[in-house]
Amino acid sequence: MRGRSLLVDTSAVRTIVARLGRDVLMDTAIVRLTDAIRAFDPAIASVPMRAGVQYATPAFGLLEWMPAYLGSTDTLVKVVGYHPTNPDARGLPTVISSMCLFDTQSGHLTAMVDGTFLTAIRTGAASAVASRVLASPDSRTLGVIGCGAQAVTQIHALARLFPLERVMACDINPAVAHSLGDRMRFVDVPVQVIPRDRVADLVEASDILCTCTSTAPGDGPVFADGPTRTHLHVNGVGSDFPGKFELPVTLLRRALVCPDFREQAAVEGECQQLAQSDIGPDLATLVQRAALYQGSQRELTVFDSTGWGVEDHVIASMMIDFAREFGLGQDIELECLPPDPRDPYSLVEPALAGIAAPVAAIARL
Amino acid sequence: MRGRSLLVDTSAVRTIVARLGRDVLMDTAIVRLTDAIRAFDPAIASVPMRAGVQYATPAFGLLEWMPAYLGSTDTLVKVVGYHPTNPDARGLPTVISSMCLFDTQSGHLTAMVDGTFLTAIRTGAASAVASRVLASPDSRTLGVIGCGAQAVTQIHALARLFPLERVMACDINPAVAHSLGDRMRFVDVPVQVIPRDRVADLVEASDILCTCTSTAPGDGPVFADGPTRTHLHVNGVGSDFPGKFELPVTLLRRALVCPDFREQAAVEGECQQLAQSDIGPDLATLVQRAALYQGSQRELTVFDSTGWGVEDHVIASMMIDFAREFGLGQDIELECLPPDPRDPYSLVEPALAGIAAPVAAIARL
Repeated sequence: MRGRSLLVDTSAVRTIVARLGRDVLMDTAIVRLTDAIRAFDPAIASVPMRAGVQYATPAFGLLEWMPAYLGSTDTLVKVVGYHPTNPDARGLPTVISSMCLFDTQSGHLTAMVDGTFLTAIRTGAASAVASRVLASPDSRTLGVIGCGAQAVTQIHALARLFPLERVMACDINPAVAHSLGDRMRFVDVPVQVIPRDRVADLVEASDILCTCTSTAPGDGPVFADGPTRTHLHVNGVGSDFPGKFELPVTLLRRALVCPDFREQAAVEGECQQLAQSDIGPDLATLVQRAALYQGSQRELTVFDSTGWGVEDHVIASMMIDFAREFGLGQDIELECLPPDPRDPYSLVEPALAGIAAPVAAIARL
Repeated sequence: MRGRSLLVDTSAVRTIVARLGRDVLMDTAIVRLTDAIRAFDPAIASVPMRAGVQYATPAFGLLEWMPAYLGSTDTLVKVVGYHPTNPDARGLPTVISSMCLFDTQSGHLTAMVDGTFLTAIRTGAASAVASRVLASPDSRTLGVIGCGAQAVTQIHALARLFPLERVMACDINPAVAHSLGDRMRFVDVPVQVIPRDRVADLVEASDILCTCTSTAPGDGPVFADGPTRTHLHVNGVGSDFPGKFELPVTLLRRALVCPDFREQAAVEGECQQLAQSDIGPDLATLVQRAALYQGSQRELTVFDSTGWGVEDHVIASMMIDFAREFGLGQDIELECLPPDPRDPYSLVEPALAGIAAPVAAIARL
């Protein structure tokens, strides 16, 4: 309706997740992401690299936008903040985000939804989609380095697709590694904590490995190169900033490295460490030509996940669709569209528009 | 409060405008914009050029973002859509916009407010601020070419600062020109309609001239160069897209041309027509060193207004402050911040989190 938008608020998201259950939520995300990537046409779509403002005062932080037009009736704009002092100073997540869907015909804001919780879901779903093409279907051991929020949805998404028998988990903070088992009880796969000085054992035993750390720019890689299974598939999730990477360059050079979004991965992802010519097919190519890459399931592969607007478009649309289906969310009016498009003040009833103030009101100018 | 945002909805904006009256609203915008520009420090601020996605399907349109960090506790993100088929096809404005203010420390969305109505207000206020430095204080005749929405707030803002005795108005559509008098009754300055073939008379008689047309890229200028008053000041407002400009290049070459935002004006504004070396001081320089430029009030000057994030930051903050002062707007919860930042699913009560679904749910993958 003219000027009105659907606000899918936190209460609506909670109800959707509770009603569907985590598994149906994640399964639907994986299915819809796969469909969207299959239909993705770079000749029509416009998904620019994220860009933003960065500031040093009062503390280092940045705000970025990630727009995504896929040729459909809705265009997504995600705004995402990265403020690493949040957890310690404010008890807030490092990443806070919200997403807006705009009508591609008119530019009208059709709906808004969270981007904080949903980013974790879509990042898990993206690793599942890439792993389905690149990892051995018989993968039973999942290694996880970095046991924060992203680890939960990585493990969950992969457990939906692979016959996992154990998770080996390592974190710079042992307490965080030890709490992962509790957080993952719902997937029914035992979590074995690996001390940091034995991370090589974790890497060597993994069929699939996820790195999802907050390592600082310049501090990577998060493990030293060494023996791995021939068919190891790595989802590199933590790399999302210039200078920030998690994987040893020698491992990358031996592997087929597949970025979610080539241009962005070359600046912010593991691909920073590689020459353009050493970068393999991107996620859209993998999914659209999966048969071509089936042989890779027996070889060393890396999914370089920096976060792609297509994933956000999918997850935002999915939640908004569920909100509509379940009759959830609030109908809000944010855009002030005056009845006479040539008279901004027609927004206000003539009788209410106040009386003229003396010019003296701005004498102090 | 954690995860909560103030939604300054249309009803709140209406109430604010009605309670203040148009004049106090505009005066406050002019005062606050002047203060913000005086305090503007390019070494601290980050106000990148607008950027966005452009698409050709289903019709030409674009969505842009304009972020503005001024060194304060709030960082603005404005999203603005430009969809020229809106008025005829959908009865909607060409430009629809919304604005979000984020906490600079945490990235939390503190408040949202309209950007459609408010863009018209801030564009008027910006011309007033520039004209106060560059136009003759005794300006009595205001010429307006293009009598749509922007004309209303241009005339209003200038009438707050100058002893205007008449407005001379010209539009490609005579009916639009003839309706301007009705729309401007509240400023108590007579509007004289000038036929299009006598636009030269309007230009010659003006002390201040505002161009605010929707001329198409490649179709400018909107009047031919000719005689003007020695002290004419022009606010060029309609130029905001590559190839789109309104003023004759020969007039620009004779004038002191002051852009709101140099880099953007060189790409989208009147400054497109000039070499970098022919471009004068920007709005911040004008305001911060007004005494230096006082002599310009007796000479030909142009304010090249393409729209600057600082203006949006000011107007959004102003409306949000009024909403807080008057207790207006809605308290919403959009960001889904799980109680345990390391467990996204802690967003949902454990008891509500559904039961495990069989993996078969995604067999069709």
